[in-house]
Amino acid sequence: MDAVTVADSRRKGDVEPLVRLAKVDMAAVDALIVERMQSQVPVIPLLADHLVAAGGKRLRPLLTIAAARASGATGPIEAPVKLAAAVEFIHTATLLHDDVVDSSDLRRGKVAAHLIWGAPSSVLVGDFLFARAFELMVETDRMRALGILATASSVISEGEVLQLTRAHDLNLDQETYLRIIAAKTAELFAAAAEAGAVGADADEAAVQALRAYGMNLGLAFQLADDALDYGGQSEKLGKNTGDDFREGKVTLPLLLAAARTAGREDAFWDRTINKGERTEDDFRRARELVFGTGAVGATLDTAWDYADLARASLAPLPESDWRDALERLADFAVSRVA
Amino acid sequence: MDAVTVADSRRKGDVEPLVRLAKVDMAAVDALIVERMQSQVPVIPLLADHLVAAGGKRLRPLLTIAAARASGATGPIEAPVKLAAAVEFIHTATLLHDDVVDSSDLRRGKVAAHLIWGAPSSVLVGDFLFARAFELMVETDRMRALGILATASSVISEGEVLQLTRAHDLNLDQETYLRIIAAKTAELFAAAAEAGAVGADADEAAVQALRAYGMNLGLAFQLADDALDYGGQSEKLGKNTGDDFREGKVTLPLLLAAARTAGREDAFWDRTINKGERTEDDFRRARELVFGTGAVGATLDTAWDYADLARASLAPLPESDWRDALERLADFAVSRVA
Repeated sequence: MDAVTVADSRRKGDVEPLVRLAKVDMAAVDALIVERMQSQVPVIPLLADHLVAAGGKRLRPLLTIAAARASGATGPIEAPVKLAAAVEFIHTATLLHDDVVDSSDLRRGKVAAHLIWGAPSSVLVGDFLFARAFELMVETDRMRALGILATASSVISEGEVLQLTRAHDLNLDQETYLRIIAAKTAELFAAAAEAGAVGADADEAAVQALRAYGMNLGLAFQLADDALDYGGQSEKLGKNTGDDFREGKVTLPLLLAAARTAGREDAFWDRTINKGERTEDDFRRARELVFGTGAVGATLDTAWDYADLARASLAPLPESDWRDALERLADFAVSRVA
Repeated sequence: MDAVTVADSRRKGDVEPLVRLAKVDMAAVDALIVERMQSQVPVIPLLADHLVAAGGKRLRPLLTIAAARASGATGPIEAPVKLAAAVEFIHTATLLHDDVVDSSDLRRGKVAAHLIWGAPSSVLVGDFLFARAFELMVETDRMRALGILATASSVISEGEVLQLTRAHDLNLDQETYLRIIAAKTAELFAAAAEAGAVGADADEAAVQALRAYGMNLGLAFQLADDALDYGGQSEKLGKNTGDDFREGKVTLPLLLAAARTAGREDAFWDRTINKGERTEDDFRRARELVFGTGAVGATLDTAWDYADLARASLAPLPESDWRDALERLADFAVSRVA
């Protein structure tokens, strides 16, 4: 089965309905983010603003807001707004540290902060934002939300260490790969949604439903990202494709391709991944193998399975525009891979 | 006035009375530290244990325990024990990150963790311990203690950034120097003591007294450490002396010496600090100037002032062996500089 056929048989998702619904709440989140990243120490707001201004979709705080609204909150939602800003701070802190850890050159289309202000400042400003996240959470006076995001933070760093120590050799098994992406990516999606529901004093069924939604959505997103790094379904390579291969990072597309070419291409994978000897031509070859074996299509199939699970997780919630928008977002997590 | 005379006119402090009093409580803290630094990701407990096993006096969690007991807690003190472990995790996380930031070779007499496991693992395990600290705090169900330690954490990272960006040129003024050491060192001493009192449900006067004690103690400690880096009062150089000068870090002894030799040694200071051109002979020369101008003695005088303030801060507390032991500790902060 060809990857394009698979994807075309699925729904076209969209993030815009959710962005539109959350516009007012997200303006409050953005204002709070800018307010709380200030410091009398000049490099801190400069560095933080470099990432924050670069934006991105603010998907994680958007989930916190959507979870609060989808579980029935009306009127002002002070606690979820603060929790959403805290979630974005935790995410930004992990990006700053990740870029140092991976020696990345780019982030959100801009030069990575550590290349401008140095790795030491990136490490310390990450710590600052992480601490500010907890200060914001304390203000909500919701110990349960604090516990959710504290645990998420320790799980994320465990996932990052696991990736650092295990994701650069072909002995990585699919189970460990899933453990890594669940910890380093999906856990924060899950915690962001769960904390939003808790911040809105939602009932337990809604809290659990939104946590499950976030976890499945996060897995779908990361799997789709990992497919996208090999160009997704497109024959044309977009910007930033090939980063994982260049770093020798083993993800599902590569894992499947290596398994499906066992006995035939072992020397190629051993040299490029285990021994870390890679050229630009090697990426082209890897990509041919990843596509030729249907590994990208299979990765996207798995991503769609999680997107379906994410949609299904929402069943306990009352029908609403917010729930519909979250369903569209689940599909978007995968259908954005063009 | 000569430095030796100054110190001899002061009280000889001791940390041992406090260590003895806190023995049972600290055994509980140690057990909790070992339990909570575990992870299924193998490098995490290995790296954490490298620092934790190296020990040190565990002064900060000791303060948390002492604050709880000195404000009247008897019997089991579950919350302060958890807060004490959290304080040590925060401290260990900052040490891990500091060593990456400063590219330090040694920590607690052992090879720095980042030289064994790499800077990326040190950054991520620091993040893990920081998150675990907040998980422990959540278990105490004391939002106020969480707020105290969250704020302390953001203040510490601000202090570290301030030091990184300001403490390597001679334009540093004494006020900024004090701001840096208050933030990067004394704030955690203050928060450790304050959180211990809050964890023991102490009355407000005791909470404030213990916070003030911790702040003054932390300032005394750091000033004494900065004097110690130039050999303290001893003509003999101990191990690790000269680290600050070698890193071009401007501390009070150097600041005073530069001011007191203005017009005479400007070229020397400009070359070694502002331009960063330093040899081993330069450290000897700097040390002669620091001693010859009485800058070490003046730094220790300032440290004694804060030790006196720390003792005085304890006045609102009831008399007890614990209060006496905290008084001895305040003197020890400076009298340990032999």
